[in-house]
Order: sequence, then structure tokens, then C-alpha cells
Amino acid sequence: MKFTEGGICAAKGFKASGTYCGIKKPKASNQNPNIKHKNDICLFVSDTVCNTAAVYTQNKVKGAPITVTKSNLEKSGNKSIAVIANSKNANTCNADGVEKAQRMCQLVAEELGVPEEQVIVASTGVIGLTLPIEPIEKAVPVLAKGLCYNKNLEAATAIMTTDTVTKEYAVAFEIGDVTCRIGGMAKGSGMIHPNMATTLNFITTDCAISSELLQKALNEIVKVTYNCLSIDGDTSTNDMVCLMANGLAFNEEIVCEGKEYETFKSALYEVMANLTKMLAKDGEGATKLVMCQVSGAKDMDTAITCAKSVICSPLVKTAMFGADANCGRIMGALGYSGADIDPLKIDLSYKSAKGCIDVCRGGYVVEFDEEKAKEILLDDEITIMVNLNSGDSGITAYGCDLTYDYVKINGDYRT
Amino acid sequence: MKFTEGGICAAKGFKASGTYCGIKKPKASNQNPNIKHKNDICLFVSDTVCNTAAVYTQNKVKGAPITVTKSNLEKSGNKSIAVIANSKNANTCNADGVEKAQRMCQLVAEELGVPEEQVIVASTGVIGLTLPIEPIEKAVPVLAKGLCYNKNLEAATAIMTTDTVTKEYAVAFEIGDVTCRIGGMAKGSGMIHPNMATTLNFITTDCAISSELLQKALNEIVKVTYNCLSIDGDTSTNDMVCLMANGLAFNEEIVCEGKEYETFKSALYEVMANLTKMLAKDGEGATKLVMCQVSGAKDMDTAITCAKSVICSPLVKTAMFGADANCGRIMGALGYSGADIDPLKIDLSYKSAKGCIDVCRGGYVVEFDEEKAKEILLDDEITIMVNLNSGDSGITAYGCDLTYDYVKINGDYRT
Repeated sequence: MKFTEGGICAAKGFKASGTYCGIKKPKASNQNPNIKHKNDICLFVSDTVCNTAAVYTQNKVKGAPITVTKSNLEKSGNKSIAVIANSKNANTCNADGVEKAQRMCQLVAEELGVPEEQVIVASTGVIGLTLPIEPIEKAVPVLAKGLCYNKNLEAATAIMTTDTVTKEYAVAFEIGDVTCRIGGMAKGSGMIHPNMATTLNFITTDCAISSELLQKALNEIVKVTYNCLSIDGDTSTNDMVCLMANGLAFNEEIVCEGKEYETFKSALYEVMANLTKMLAKDGEGATKLVMCQVSGAKDMDTAITCAKSVICSPLVKTAMFGADANCGRIMGALGYSGADIDPLKIDLSYKSAKGCIDVCRGGYVVEFDEEKAKEILLDDEITIMVNLNSGDSGITAYGCDLTYDYVKINGDYRT
Repeated sequence: MKFTEGGICAAKGFKASGTYCGIKKPKASNQNPNIKHKNDICLFVSDTVCNTAAVYTQNKVKGAPITVTKSNLEKSGNKSIAVIANSKNANTCNADGVEKAQRMCQLVAEELGVPEEQVIVASTGVIGLTLPIEPIEKAVPVLAKGLCYNKNLEAATAIMTTDTVTKEYAVAFEIGDVTCRIGGMAKGSGMIHPNMATTLNFITTDCAISSELLQKALNEIVKVTYNCLSIDGDTSTNDMVCLMANGLAFNEEIVCEGKEYETFKSALYEVMANLTKMLAKDGEGATKLVMCQVSGAKDMDTAITCAKSVICSPLVKTAMFGADANCGRIMGALGYSGADIDPLKIDLSYKSAKGCIDVCRGGYVVEFDEEKAKEILLDDEITIMVNLNSGDSGITAYGCDLTYDYVKINGDYRT
């Protein structure tokens, strides 16, 4: 398996395009100066119909695009061929939201001559603001005309909100003698929290694989990647992960579990884990990627609960911002996680490219070199290592520090 | 029922004292300049043995003082006579923690000539730092000598950590023809989160009431006051609420539920609700008190879950800091709360001393006057009103905004 360029266009037969159509937030005075992209809408299309898997937000308040996409995929038997997505407006909590989201699918279906129920729609941005449909009506023909096998970046920039960088990742891997590709793009920076499908994520592959196995693989990998990510504990109303497989690599279709399925899953993990890291590192206001690697858990759920609790703790996050080796806060977060753990078995250490240092043994804080700890924690990728010493399960959760800029970005997001 | 001065000394027969003994944090460079108090240890004592109720943190990592207090009250059959509490050091995650906490009880017992198991011990401050016992050994005789029926403030300042103001409240109320008093003090500013006994809280009363009813009343009132409070989502390892009743008002002892018990509970609610508000308003870095008042819930648990979810949301908290009427974030927080609610029945409005404005009806955002909303949200006490329109239950949860100063205070708490 190896990294490859091309994001959602890495797999054969996927064309993309993006443009600026003029969907506006109410005011735009506090635009992050690091955000130079302008696109606000994108379209991408497969040359042939795709088997499709999806995971949606578990927020009870769901964006209209979620409702419409879910309904379309039910109607089409999990087949899709095109995706339209916009930023700047979430089309959520609006009385005419479903109607507008359906209209977006209809516009794409008419323009491309494909069935409306094979169109996926996604929106991200401000909640509770009427979505203007005219700019989108004008944009769809432009997007269709612009479709290209290498315009993945145009699409990736169109879904950004407070993101400061585009997030794309793709790998090539072998199924039998055939080279397949899987690639994805993601957006998201705040309102990100584990245990739900997180942010907007679109993943494409040319690997031939059944819808059932596609959904199974997606569920399994979401659990250990996106669902182990938290920026701020807030779960969006519009989160969605879509995985589309068009089979154009012409490998023998994967229809049962086994070696090929495992290979596919490994490739999917590689893409999703890397996108997850990118999302964490670009968390709103973040200055560093903070990972919590839990080992020695009695089972996977315990490992996940503990790792998430640590990366979600505002006190841990602010301490990481300050490069403060305050391990009491980590012990505290493990203790209130709800996981069934024995505090007197917990070992803690901090790790980064600058080294590794033990700070807690058997639940008690040990003497350690504060200067060395500071040096490690000043790095921009930090791992908090937690050994529960109670079993063989382990997991890594992904988060970031909590900074002044998070407060600044969110103190006045709409204006 | 009416407010009265005196905090924990408002009730008859309670003496208190506080002093500075020299328990140090590792460094003290970022001391909040608003914090002028110096006391780091206090003692308070009842003239007679008290029926005692307590609620402890649900964090699995528990401070040694929690372990020792719990064990003492078990041994004594829920009787207590004295409390010793220190700040600056939590005596938690230390190998010799229990030994040190026991020693504190022993010192008080010897000095006052009372049974060791009738002494309650509490510590708050930095976790994982060895508690120096010598300063405490020297302080106990000084504290004992200083005990006075009006030194509640000395004690209240001694338990402060990042608190900027002392928190005391007391009321007088009638049981039959007898005037009783109940008063309390609290500390806490960060590491505060609902659904657990929260922060250090000591409440005293001269009302005669059985241990069983005392505990029952405390459990009921904790649920709708402290457990509806969140500053940052972090639950401390050392949280404790102690309620001591010495019976020195000489009312007929309350031994069964009924009118007198309800009166007692109302008084307890008055004290604890006011302390809860003070804790919320003094949240680390907070510029305003943010309350979420949920009505129309199908049951109390639904109301609590929804109200807590709103006040815990970092996105809601930062929006309140920015006086930004971003109601999508409130809808989002209600949606991911886990409560069984119908989004399309939700009405939202903002209220403060500056007025009230509707922002959401039946789950959809309505047009509203942004300038008016801003004016309301610029006040320093804001209520987010949520009507679920699905029943008769309601609750208010207490929180604060998330600000630059929260990040500053916690970026380098230990140094």
C-alpha cells in the first residue's frame, strides 16, 4: 500500500469540480486571514454507478441534506453517482430545508441526466439561515462543465468552513494482481466530537466491492478513526461520511470477508486515519495535534472511552496548549470517563519527537524532570500514553489543544 | 424564609477559623491578581455532635481526603463534629495521600479532644504533589485557638483556589415556632461538571433533623442545583458536599417527611441554588452567568439532560462570550444531548434584564432583531429559554461563558 496523489480523484473514473457561487454568511468580518480559498460549492461524479455506504450524525437535530441523502440512498438501494456539497450555509433548522436540498439533487440529476435518487447532497456552515437557491441553480451547469479527473482540490476547498488547510489523502493497494485506489477529502474544524459520524467526509474507490461489505468496512473503520476524534465536544447536525465504490479498477468483486476484504479495510483505515489526524491538527484555533494512545485495556470499548475522555477534557487541552505536564488532569479525565478501570494500575507518559517521559506509575505521580517534560510538550504533535495494565486492547484518539484562538473564532462565528 | 449573614457560622453553635500555613503550589507566577486572599487552611467545629450527610465525586480517581472522610463517616455512623480543609494541594494521586489525610484528622481530634472518626477532611488544589504535613501540624493549634462564632469568612477564603470571590449564603426559616438557620460555603471555579457532586461545599444547620432525612434532602437538592452546574465539563477528583446538622435550634426533630421536611428542603434549596449561581458566575475566566431554563419536558431527567447539554457546549459558551445569538448551536446541543426530544417542537428564546427575544419556533429559526438580541446577550446574567412543548417538567442549569481567560488560567495552572 502506498500514498498517492489525487484525493477523491485518485480512484479511476471520478471527476470533480468546484466554484464560487456566492452563498454568503450574514457578515464576513472575522474571516480567518489564513483561509484563502473562495469556493463554496462542488460537484463530483463517477463514470459509472457506485455501491455506496454512509454514516450520518447521531444528532437528533439533523440538517435537511442528511434527511434527503438518507432517503435517496434508501430509494436507490445504496447506489449513487454524484455528490453536490456546499459550504457557508448548513441548510439546517430552516422550514424550507428539505425542499431546497431536494432541489439541489434535482438540479444535478437534470444537468447530468442521472436519477435524482443517485445524487448525494451535503451542506455545511451556519445553521438557521435560509439557503439561497438561485446561486446554486446558476452554479450547477458551471460545475458540470468544469468536471475533470484531476480537480479534486477545487472540490476539497469548496467544503471548507473554518478549516485553514484542505484535507485530502489517497492510497493505492493491490487486490489480487489489480491495483486499486481509495482516496478521500474531509472538512471540519469545530463542532467535532466522537461517537457520531463526524464532519463531512467523502471517500471514493475504484475497487469492486459489494454494498454490504462496503458499509461493514465503513462502520468498523469509522469507530476507530473519526469517532475517536474530538475538537470541542460539539456534534454537528450535518455530519456525514460517504464511501462510493465504482468498481472501475476491474478487480474481482469483493463479496465475502477474507484476505481481500482485510486489504481493502487496511487501505480504508489508512485514508481515514490520515484524514482524522488532519482534522485534529486543524482543529479551530489549535496549535498542536494531541493524541491519546491507550493500551492495556480489558476491551476495545474501555480503550475508546478512556482515550476519548482524555482528548475531550478542556483542562487537558488547555494544559497541552501551555505545554504543562499536569498529569493530575489526565488521571482526572480517566477517572470520570465512566470506564471500568483500576486507577492504581494506571501508568502515564508523554511522548513526542523530542522524547518520552514517565509521569505516573500505578496511579501515583512520580518525580520527573519538568524541563524535559516541557521540551516534549512544546512539540506540535504530542502523544499522551496511557497504560491501563488490565488487558490487551488499545486505541489512539485524536484531538488538539484549546487555545485563545478557539475562543476568538467561536465568540463571533456568524459575524 | 429570609437571607441572613454568617455563612457556615449562621447556624447556632458553629465556630470557624482560617489561617495561612504555607502550603505551596510548585511556583506561583500566574497568581490571579484578583485573588487577594492568602489563607490556605481552615477548621470549623460544632459545639455538639452533628448528624451528617455527604455526597462525593463520582470520579473513579478519588482524592485521598474523600477516601478518609467516607471511611470516617461510616465508622461514626454519619456523625461529625469538625471539618479541616486546605487549598493549594489536592492530596490526590500521591502514594502517601491516605496517610496524610488521616494525619490531618488525627491532629484535629487530638487538639480538640474529639473522636478522630468525627473529623471530616477535604483538600483542593494541584493533583500529584506531595502534601507537606509540617505546616499543617503547626497550623492546627493556631486554628483551634482562633475558632470563633463569626469567622466564617476566614474559612471561606481558605478553600479558594482560582476562585475570585468567596461564596457564602445562609437563610433563616421557621420550623414550628422555632427559627432555624442553614448556611454554607463553597469553592470551585474550574474542573466543574454536572452529574457528580461538585466542588467543595460545606453546609451547616442548627435544625434538628435525622441523619436519614438529612441525606435524602441533600441527594434531592444536589440533583437540581450542583449537579445542574457546569463550568468546563471536567469532574474533579476531590468534589464533596457535606451537610452537618447539630440540632442546637432545639426545634422538634424532623424524623419523617411532611410539612417541616419540605420547609427544610426549601431552605436547603435556597442556600444550594444560590451557591450554585455564585460558582457558575465565578467560573474560570467567565464574564457572565449563563443559565438554561428548560420547560415543557416530558420528565425531569429529559429536562436536566437538555439543560446541561446546552450549558456544557463549548460552541454555545463561546457564542455567549461573543454575545452572538447563534441559536443553531443551541439546537445542535439539544440534538446531541441524548435526550428523547422532538426537534420540531422546540421553541427558543434569550432573556436577560435587558429583555426577551424569540429566536426559534417549532425547530426552525425565525427572523429576529439581531441588535436587540445582542443587547440582551451583552448582559452579565443570561437565560437561554428552551420550551420542548412535550410535557410539564422543567429545570434550570447553571454555567458560564468560555473566554480567553479560561485558556490563560488553565494553560499553565501549576506554574
